Amino acid sequence: MTEPLNILIIGLGLIGASFGKAIRAQGLNDRSVFVLGHDRSLGVADQAVALGVLDQAVTDLADLPRVDVVVLAVPVMAIGDVIDDIKPLIGSLQVLTDVGSVKGEVVRAVRARLGILPGCFVPGHPIAGAEQSGVAAARADLFDRHMHILTPLPESDPAAVQLITQLWQAIGADVVEMSVERHDEVLAATSHLPHLLAFSLVDTLARESDNREIFKYAAGGFRDFSRIAASDPTMWHDIFLTNKDATLSVLRRFQADLTMLEQAIEQGDGDLLHTVFTRAKSARDHFTQMLAERQKD
Amino acid sequence: MTEPLNILIIGLGLIGASFGKAIRAQGLNDRSVFVLGHDRSLGVADQAVALGVLDQAVTDLADLPRVDVVVLAVPVMAIGDVIDDIKPLIGSLQVLTDVGSVKGEVVRAVRARLGILPGCFVPGHPIAGAEQSGVAAARADLFDRHMHILTPLPESDPAAVQLITQLWQAIGADVVEMSVERHDEVLAATSHLPHLLAFSLVDTLARESDNREIFKYAAGGFRDFSRIAASDPTMWHDIFLTNKDATLSVLRRFQADLTMLEQAIEQGDGDLLHTVFTRAKSARDHFTQMLAERQKD
Repeated sequence: MTEPLNILIIGLGLIGASFGKAIRAQGLNDRSVFVLGHDRSLGVADQAVALGVLDQAVTDLADLPRVDVVVLAVPVMAIGDVIDDIKPLIGSLQVLTDVGSVKGEVVRAVRARLGILPGCFVPGHPIAGAEQSGVAAARADLFDRHMHILTPLPESDPAAVQLITQLWQAIGADVVEMSVERHDEVLAATSHLPHLLAFSLVDTLARESDNREIFKYAAGGFRDFSRIAASDPTMWHDIFLTNKDATLSVLRRFQADLTMLEQAIEQGDGDLLHTVFTRAKSARDHFTQMLAERQKD
Repeated sequence: MTEPLNILIIGLGLIGASFGKAIRAQGLNDRSVFVLGHDRSLGVADQAVALGVLDQAVTDLADLPRVDVVVLAVPVMAIGDVIDDIKPLIGSLQVLTDVGSVKGEVVRAVRARLGILPGCFVPGHPIAGAEQSGVAAARADLFDRHMHILTPLPESDPAAVQLITQLWQAIGADVVEMSVERHDEVLAATSHLPHLLAFSLVDTLARESDNREIFKYAAGGFRDFSRIAASDPTMWHDIFLTNKDATLSVLRRFQADLTMLEQAIEQGDGDLLHTVFTRAKSARDHFTQMLAERQKD
């Protein structure tokens, strides 16, 4: 009989805990998995065991059984310290991966702490999330039919890339590969900039309005547009500090385009407004259709 | 027995048709209503009768029975021409109202065509909408628990203001009054600017990306944020051309605040980012709670 694959998840928030719940439920093809988990907040790992997220809670990272795969699911700016904690383990791992939103920073942190980029290291980022956070919100289907982006490095061992790909595919994710740089550009455009605009607009309106009275008159469009302004300020502050170049680049292109629209409004250039809005509607309708097709498969 | 109140709706899109369906279902306190409707597209008024939106379709605006109330539910830039069409009728109306998104422009158009602002004229704007459009999407509950903003003019007859208030209240709307100028400022901030940002961002990303490939990697946050970029380009082009001053004013304040965030990212000023994001999250959480309370009442 094949030994089970031992997976250690460090950081049992929504993403880490959902990964645990999903992979315990699915297993890896014909191989069983055994899921260990650690969280720096006391009691969270025990709660995760009770919720079916883990097979075993790990209190002390210095005292571990055999581990084959480590999934780092802590905030991007905390990854360096966790690497220090698990340094003795890394040489014997088949896979070291993470789920952070900014891949360049994760690679930088690992290299800074280890001096090298080990062959087992394959950075990753699941394009999934939910309104809720924390271990209690864990869902086994969180990654089902969602993209998982892997950013293998020149140093990454092909066997490591293959194993982590199989693990994410086992829980329903659509795994794609791209470079670290491309990932950080794509996410700056599709996630980081929209969050910045939502935070910024809500703050502009709230500061100008006595007692936030203006929000009384907001409708469904504003509700949807501004939902992401309720995201965690600390996590997002980390993202903008660590994905600075890619975010600034797309932000500046956006600002230039917005200034062009401002001038069109000022000059009453209806043709330009109509052209841009029509092009945007067509792209958004395409996106809607793409989402619908992904759900149908 | 009291005569029924005869209401003529001109323009049978989502808003006009939903008003008809709702007021036919509710009546006005103890008085019955009779709902007539006209649409410049052939067949739409007959369809509206079949759907229960109207009691009677009107083909020719020059050949009408007695009318007490006219609701203009055509695009803002079409209102002037409709005013010309119904000019002979206006002197005998109890209420002339509209549902346009930009009140200053509607008032300007009515004054331009009539030379005066008649006492029966009370501009209005329901803060409601839906993904679908057109007569077939009409819903009797569209305005239930939604704001309806009235912007009475110095010329408006108090009896006209009272009657149109009662009509909107009868179908569940929460009627508030404000000045034309304040309305256009509030909507510029809570509706027009968010639409401009969504159109602009989707267009920026779509133009840069080969085959819109970038949208493949977008998640739920982007989906919600960009939903309003699928709105009707012609209607929104009208709005920006007619609410130019208020839109430009809030757009420039937004751009100044966004530039401040850009500089914070550039300089690595995490404190400023954290402060703004925390303030925005608090305001957005307040808005969420406000919406939840409105639904509970």
